[in-house]
Amino acid sequence: MNGQPRPGRPHQATGAWMPGDPPGSRRFFEIPRPLALDGGATLSGVVVAYETWGTLKADRSNAVLLCHAWTGDSHATGPAEHGHPAPGWWEGAVGPGLAIDTRRWFVVCANVLGGCQGSTGPASPHPVDGRPYGSRFPVITIRDMVRAQARLADHLGVQRWHAVVGGSMGGMQVLEWAVMFPQRVGGIVPIATCTQASAQQIAWGAIGRRAIRMDPKWRGGDYYDADPDDGPWEGLATARMVAQVTFRSDNVFTDRFGRELADGATLHDGLDLWQRFEVERYLDYHGDKLVRRFDTNSYLIIGKAMDLHDIGRGRSGLGAAISRVTSPALVMGISSDILYPTYQQRQIHELLLSEGTKSDYVEIDSPHGHDAFLINLDQVAPPIQQFLESLAPA
Amino acid sequence: MNGQPRPGRPHQATGAWMPGDPPGSRRFFEIPRPLALDGGATLSGVVVAYETWGTLKADRSNAVLLCHAWTGDSHATGPAEHGHPAPGWWEGAVGPGLAIDTRRWFVVCANVLGGCQGSTGPASPHPVDGRPYGSRFPVITIRDMVRAQARLADHLGVQRWHAVVGGSMGGMQVLEWAVMFPQRVGGIVPIATCTQASAQQIAWGAIGRRAIRMDPKWRGGDYYDADPDDGPWEGLATARMVAQVTFRSDNVFTDRFGRELADGATLHDGLDLWQRFEVERYLDYHGDKLVRRFDTNSYLIIGKAMDLHDIGRGRSGLGAAISRVTSPALVMGISSDILYPTYQQRQIHELLLSEGTKSDYVEIDSPHGHDAFLINLDQVAPPIQQFLESLAPA
Repeated sequence: MNGQPRPGRPHQATGAWMPGDPPGSRRFFEIPRPLALDGGATLSGVVVAYETWGTLKADRSNAVLLCHAWTGDSHATGPAEHGHPAPGWWEGAVGPGLAIDTRRWFVVCANVLGGCQGSTGPASPHPVDGRPYGSRFPVITIRDMVRAQARLADHLGVQRWHAVVGGSMGGMQVLEWAVMFPQRVGGIVPIATCTQASAQQIAWGAIGRRAIRMDPKWRGGDYYDADPDDGPWEGLATARMVAQVTFRSDNVFTDRFGRELADGATLHDGLDLWQRFEVERYLDYHGDKLVRRFDTNSYLIIGKAMDLHDIGRGRSGLGAAISRVTSPALVMGISSDILYPTYQQRQIHELLLSEGTKSDYVEIDSPHGHDAFLINLDQVAPPIQQFLESLAPA
Repeated sequence: MNGQPRPGRPHQATGAWMPGDPPGSRRFFEIPRPLALDGGATLSGVVVAYETWGTLKADRSNAVLLCHAWTGDSHATGPAEHGHPAPGWWEGAVGPGLAIDTRRWFVVCANVLGGCQGSTGPASPHPVDGRPYGSRFPVITIRDMVRAQARLADHLGVQRWHAVVGGSMGGMQVLEWAVMFPQRVGGIVPIATCTQASAQQIAWGAIGRRAIRMDPKWRGGDYYDADPDDGPWEGLATARMVAQVTFRSDNVFTDRFGRELADGATLHDGLDLWQRFEVERYLDYHGDKLVRRFDTNSYLIIGKAMDLHDIGRGRSGLGAAISRVTSPALVMGISSDILYPTYQQRQIHELLLSEGTKSDYVEIDSPHGHDAFLINLDQVAPPIQQFLESLAPA
């Protein structure tokens, strides 16, 4: 298999959607002008893949933007389909009659810049030679992701979002929207996120980067001409495993896996270094699952963007950045989150209050850790529904 | 460099001490009979490297055994010397007039079976062909480590330890001593440890194993004929980084590193995927430091022993295992420990009490995480001193 995707089938060597693949429910917007990036580079011909649900009112006042997390995509809700082997990542929170009610709101979700599910990323063809960017793809920031989304908003005729909502890295985008474009945001819902990546968060990210770099099949990022079975999947899977542990919690791992061995083995059969405990089988499963659907370079680029996340950078610090925010906020944290501990969300809430911005803080009481914003919809969705309804129209 | 160590210099390709290397302050005991292991295998010619401080009384009642953690060794105290590039790991807690007073107690510390600092491990010569065991070294358990220590105790003429003391994996050995040999233990001090490895602990261990296995230079464990610069050091360093994050805490990482870049760089210089934050430099440093002193296969074998740790295994559960313990206990936990959370030490304490065994629980109030048992000696040492003095002589 060479570097060119085969039309009509997923680009298996990258996990990424490529032009020529069936679009699924996505639509694609090509940003007409080059996009200038935080790092100094410029990207031309940037494509943003997005999905919408509901109808934009004539006065364009009812648009809600959902921002996805690290390995998410534009498919916030909807059945499994081509390019989306699982239902939407917020299925149950978004839809007709649900908390983010698509009968009332025009809901938009875009794959982030740097991603691999239709938006321009490292697996996309470079406009000059048509070969994947690979190692040529520049480092991007959360702000760059938001800039691309702002161009999409222009394209959709949305001057001002009724609200911008997202968890984890999605929450980073939510905060940047409120700081970069305060006049374009009616309300914000940052969930399980932070004003700036902490040293520990960076440490986990760095270990994942290192695992990928160590995989000889990563080849410095230029692996797209490899056989589908011969990419840097071992490195990506290992990086994913690190993240997967931080996304969950000690208690849930104990309840779910305990010390059981995988595959029905027992220790009476003898001891072997590679005999797996059930929790190892689970991590292997999640690593392999990601490999089948995600591009390794996108994982690196997006992870680095999270490590670089700092709403205070170049803005005289966090307080000054937060002072730009004008929209009311609903800030949510998760009691058992070990990756984005609740002190980080309380900090957002308290900074907003101290700058005179209306903010409510809701803590999800869940054992599931960081991923609870995708799991405990019974607690996550109702406050969002109430918040969306409470916001004054523009 | 071939598989044979060069006499008189450290075996750089493994980080391990090998016969012919200067002994430092160690002495070496060869177990006269083969050692039968939990996994069914038998090891012949097992050497146990150990150090002692103080003088064994004529009635042999004053011997205290210290058990070291994952990458520790027999050098609990003493200056840097050959084979021990740093002072002892419990320097400040062990010595004349210190909490573990070597004027009063005969203190013994042995490198664990499977280790690489003088005791038999994967880098040691196989008795049949003299080549390093490598992939031939069997999986061992904490119980196997204790069995080797019991042979050493016989050799030293210590029928009964006044106390057995250790943190982390050292604490696992402490618990096994009390369960396997209740009549040979006068008191136990398990610190920052657990009755059985949790699913989350196993998960972290599994990720480290996987990182090492991914390193092509590991070569299935048979890398001892490699050039010293060409071993599985990248894999070992990555595994160590995972552990290093779990050994510390979010707060301490934030206080110490924040979001500073390494090497005086600034983000105004442009963005690069491999530009390091200060916390990455710290992790790289600790990874590289371990590579210089530790054998990769020992890291794997000892890590697996920790994952297999379960005092209830084959003993009808935790309660039945703990009911075998007859000696008083001082159980210590660390408030900020994310790897061995304090509920694990409270469980030990409560199980002991419920089985009618005397136990005290002391919680170290420290921001330093798991490693606090090596750092906050001001809080760790005094209760141990008091406990040792409180124990009735045999």
